Amino acid sequence: MPSSTLQHQLHRCSINTATLGHRLPFEQTLELIAHAGFGHIAPWRRDLQGRDLKQTRRQLRDSGLQVNAYCRSSYLTASSREGFAAALADNRKAIEEAAELQAECFVMVVGGLAEGSRDLAAARGQVSDGIGLLLEHARQHAVPLALEPLHPMYAADRSCLSSLEQALDLCEALEPQGFHNLGVAIDAYHCWWDPKLAEQIARAGSQRRILGLHLSDWLVPTCDLLLDRGMMGDGVIDLRGLRHSVEAAGYRGAIEVEIFSRDNWWQREPGEVLKTCAQRLQQHC
Amino acid sequence: MPSSTLQHQLHRCSINTATLGHRLPFEQTLELIAHAGFGHIAPWRRDLQGRDLKQTRRQLRDSGLQVNAYCRSSYLTASSREGFAAALADNRKAIEEAAELQAECFVMVVGGLAEGSRDLAAARGQVSDGIGLLLEHARQHAVPLALEPLHPMYAADRSCLSSLEQALDLCEALEPQGFHNLGVAIDAYHCWWDPKLAEQIARAGSQRRILGLHLSDWLVPTCDLLLDRGMMGDGVIDLRGLRHSVEAAGYRGAIEVEIFSRDNWWQREPGEVLKTCAQRLQQHC
Repeated sequence: MPSSTLQHQLHRCSINTATLGHRLPFEQTLELIAHAGFGHIAPWRRDLQGRDLKQTRRQLRDSGLQVNAYCRSSYLTASSREGFAAALADNRKAIEEAAELQAECFVMVVGGLAEGSRDLAAARGQVSDGIGLLLEHARQHAVPLALEPLHPMYAADRSCLSSLEQALDLCEALEPQGFHNLGVAIDAYHCWWDPKLAEQIARAGSQRRILGLHLSDWLVPTCDLLLDRGMMGDGVIDLRGLRHSVEAAGYRGAIEVEIFSRDNWWQREPGEVLKTCAQRLQQHC
Repeated sequence: MPSSTLQHQLHRCSINTATLGHRLPFEQTLELIAHAGFGHIAPWRRDLQGRDLKQTRRQLRDSGLQVNAYCRSSYLTASSREGFAAALADNRKAIEEAAELQAECFVMVVGGLAEGSRDLAAARGQVSDGIGLLLEHARQHAVPLALEPLHPMYAADRSCLSSLEQALDLCEALEPQGFHNLGVAIDAYHCWWDPKLAEQIARAGSQRRILGLHLSDWLVPTCDLLLDRGMMGDGVIDLRGLRHSVEAAGYRGAIEVEIFSRDNWWQREPGEVLKTCAQRLQQHC
C-alpha cells in the first residue's frame, strides 16, 4: 500500500548530491544529509573524483546512509568509433565504482545527438547498442542499470531517450525475458508532462523495472533549460499523485530529491536546503 | 511524390507573421512577403487587431498571397466556468475571422494548466470538451481546426497537448468517422524529438489530418524556452527529412516558417529575414 503522505518517512528519502550544488567535500555532504534525517544518498561521480572508494564506502557505512543510486553514465552517443569505445570504457569503470559503493543502481543518461549530427534515429541506435554492450558488465557486477528518460528539451544535447515508453521499449528489446538487470528511473521533472505517463508507469511496474523515483518541481516561468528546477511545492507538478502511482505500481525504493537550481537553492546554505527538502517532501509529496 | 528540395518552390512556402516579430503594419508585411516570392502567409490574430477584415481580404487578394492558416486560438483551459465560456466565445469569433480571411485552417494552441492548478488530466479533459464544442461552429464556417501539439516544455503554460499521438487520439475521439474538419499542424520545433514521430506522421497522413507543416530549428544551446528558435539550418533538426516524411504521408499544403527569435531575427531588418528564410528553405528543407 502506498502511504498517503511522507510524514515521518524521511528514512525512505534520498538526497541527490547535485541538490547541494557540488559545493562541499563529500564527507561533509554525507554528514549533513544523515543529520537531516534522510536514509539515502545518490552521489554524483564528480563528487567522488579522485577518492579512495573503499574509504568512501566505510564513511557511507558509518553515516548510516544507503546509496540508492550512483549518478551517472557518461554519454554513449559519439561521432566516431573511438569516441563510442571510450564512452563504453568509461561507463564500465563507473559500473565498477557503483558496485564498490554498493549502489542499488547505476543511473544512465544516454546522451543526445552526436557532435555535428542531425540524425536522432542513429543516436538512438547507438544508445541501444551501447546499453546492450554494457549490460553484461553490469550483470557481472550485480549493478542494475536505470535508464533515465530526460525531458524532450534535452534531446539534442543530453538524452535522446525522451519518454518512459521509449525507455521501456528499449528494456524489453534488450531483456526480452523480463527484468533482470535493466530498468528505469522515473524523474518527475522529465516525465510529468507525458500524456502516457500513468499507462507507462503501470507497464514499468508490472515488469518490476522501476529502479528510482526522482522529485523536483517545474517552475512557471522556467528561466533556464537546465538549472532552474524548483523545490517540491514551488511548481506545478502533482508530485504526490506521481509518487502514489509509482508506488501503486509496486515501487518500494528510495524517493530521491534532485534539484539543479543555480540562482536559488545552490546559493543557499546546504543545511537550509536539506531542511526545506525534508519539509516539502513531507508536506507535498 | 515529395520533391527532393524546395529549390524554385517558394510559391509553396508561407511566412508566419510572428517570424517578423510583429513590428510592421500588416499591409507592409504582406507586401514584403509577396515581394520575397512566397506564395502564402499565416497571419497572427494580433496583427489584424482592429482592422476591417473585408478590406484585409482585398489586400490579401491583391498581394496574390494565400492564407494557409490563421494563427491562433486563445487558450481553452480556464479555472472557472466563466473563463471557459469566454474562451469558447473568443475562439468562435476567431473562427469567423478565419472564414472571412478564407484561411485554409485555424491553428489551435490549446493552453496549459488552468491558473493555480496541478491537474494536467483535468486540463486535457477541458481541452477535449472545448474542441468538441467549437467543432460544429468550425464546420458551419468551413474552417478546419488544426490542433498544434506544442513541445512538452510548454505543458504548464501554453499547451497540455504535447505530442502528435495525443493530438491524433483527440481527433479520432471527436471525429470517429474520419477526417471532416479536425486535423493537426505539425511543427518541427515542437515535435522533432519524438521517438514516435515517423509512426504518427504516417498515421496522420493515412487519415488526411495533416493541415500544416511549420519549420524553424532547434538551437544548441537554446537560451530561452520561448523566444530562441533558430533559422532553418542553424540548428539540429533534420528538416528536409521531416518534410519528406510529411509529404510522403500525403501532405500537399504550404510549408510555413515560424520563428520566434527575440534577440536575433527579430532584431534584423524584415527584408533580410525574408531573404534568409527563402535561401534556407531552398538549401536546407
